[in-house]
Amino acid sequence: MSDLMQDERIDFLVHEDLKIIQSLSVFSFSLDAVLLSRFAWVPIQKGKIIDLCSGNGAVALLLSKRSKAKITGVEIQERLHSMATRSVALNHLEEQIQMDLADIKEAPAIYGYGAFDALTCNPPYFASVHEEDFNQNEHLAIARHEIHCSLEDVIRVSSQLVKQGGKVAMVHRPNRLMEILAYMREYKLEPKKLQLIYPKAGSEANMLLIEGMKNGKPDLHILPPITVYSEDGQYTEQLKRMFYGEDGK
Amino acid sequence: MSDLMQDERIDFLVHEDLKIIQSLSVFSFSLDAVLLSRFAWVPIQKGKIIDLCSGNGAVALLLSKRSKAKITGVEIQERLHSMATRSVALNHLEEQIQMDLADIKEAPAIYGYGAFDALTCNPPYFASVHEEDFNQNEHLAIARHEIHCSLEDVIRVSSQLVKQGGKVAMVHRPNRLMEILAYMREYKLEPKKLQLIYPKAGSEANMLLIEGMKNGKPDLHILPPITVYSEDGQYTEQLKRMFYGEDGK
Repeated sequence: MSDLMQDERIDFLVHEDLKIIQSLSVFSFSLDAVLLSRFAWVPIQKGKIIDLCSGNGAVALLLSKRSKAKITGVEIQERLHSMATRSVALNHLEEQIQMDLADIKEAPAIYGYGAFDALTCNPPYFASVHEEDFNQNEHLAIARHEIHCSLEDVIRVSSQLVKQGGKVAMVHRPNRLMEILAYMREYKLEPKKLQLIYPKAGSEANMLLIEGMKNGKPDLHILPPITVYSEDGQYTEQLKRMFYGEDGK
Repeated sequence: MSDLMQDERIDFLVHEDLKIIQSLSVFSFSLDAVLLSRFAWVPIQKGKIIDLCSGNGAVALLLSKRSKAKITGVEIQERLHSMATRSVALNHLEEQIQMDLADIKEAPAIYGYGAFDALTCNPPYFASVHEEDFNQNEHLAIARHEIHCSLEDVIRVSSQLVKQGGKVAMVHRPNRLMEILAYMREYKLEPKKLQLIYPKAGSEANMLLIEGMKNGKPDLHILPPITVYSEDGQYTEQLKRMFYGEDGK
């Protein structure tokens, strides 16, 4: 099960004690997944979590270190689903994590409306794709661009999947914030937490984390900013604490 | 004209070479005004700027240091309008700044629709006021609470006052962000710049600056965060540069 395919490698996250199968040519998780898995609210002891657009399963795997709840990952690409499934096996997490090969738009029909306590999603960031890019690397194109699901699909489906008071957490780009908020409002996910990620001091934000509550009351908190790199090009102390140290949140 | 009334004092902003009449018991401008006046886009050489909910005129006075455009300030409270008018005289800025005593809801009828290139507003932050607080200090209650104008009034009127492509900049509290964005969308002010202010490292944001463009295209930039106080309770170097040094933006 955990045999590596050509161009794959295993990344070992020492601090998390997790092994994750990566492939630069197909999909590799990055800071986005790590930050999302730390930012999202999760039930600790029991409950059900779903991770949409799971890719190689990094978010689902990382969440398993914070929660004993059952976790379902949904990914539409067979190759990525295969990587995720093999990573779950590699970490002996088959009891807790189930990786499903499916279109997220079918998820409410598959799992039921209101079936989950919490949901995470690291969706494609870009609205459209050039045919050229698509032809060059279909796997990356699908993971990065809204080919199989639009931002509206992601938010509508997310809202359908969580119960009343359930949480939906997402990582995205700041230039999509207005659309995200408009769809969250439309689909009754009230934004409760927003956190901005800045590549370095003095730069504009290039990533955002947002969490909404199904039919929640308006009460938005903007969490402390996260700065990724310091002047010397190294990770900031803040980020190192998140990755390696005590809980740096 | 520049005689001080009881309980008033003159603050001298050395770096800006401005004198501003303040009164703790009636209204005193604060960091909000300084940050807003730096954040807002202004036409440099010519054009027309309007500042709503002007209070003691701090924003209008500070803007005059960045722009040669004509500036109109609108304030509903007679006592505050008097302070603002005397501060304008004190700085010999009567040619550039006009302080009007008026209800902002009347402003489009007074000045005309689409009459301004840029607009600033430091509106009341709180939706409702206890009768007790109102009775105790009517001046502060009106400045801080939405008694004479609601957030929707502010944004609707702002949109009416600026021309196509004109800019509207506002300072407010993060817990009102969702309402602000919803009203901006409703009244065709497309958010272009957002900046969060954090009281100190590791704290949630307690202030936000936002600027929209009348009928602009979606393209939101989230500017670098501003942290006000360092661990030792002093202003951060970043903030000191803004107040005293070279342009720290």
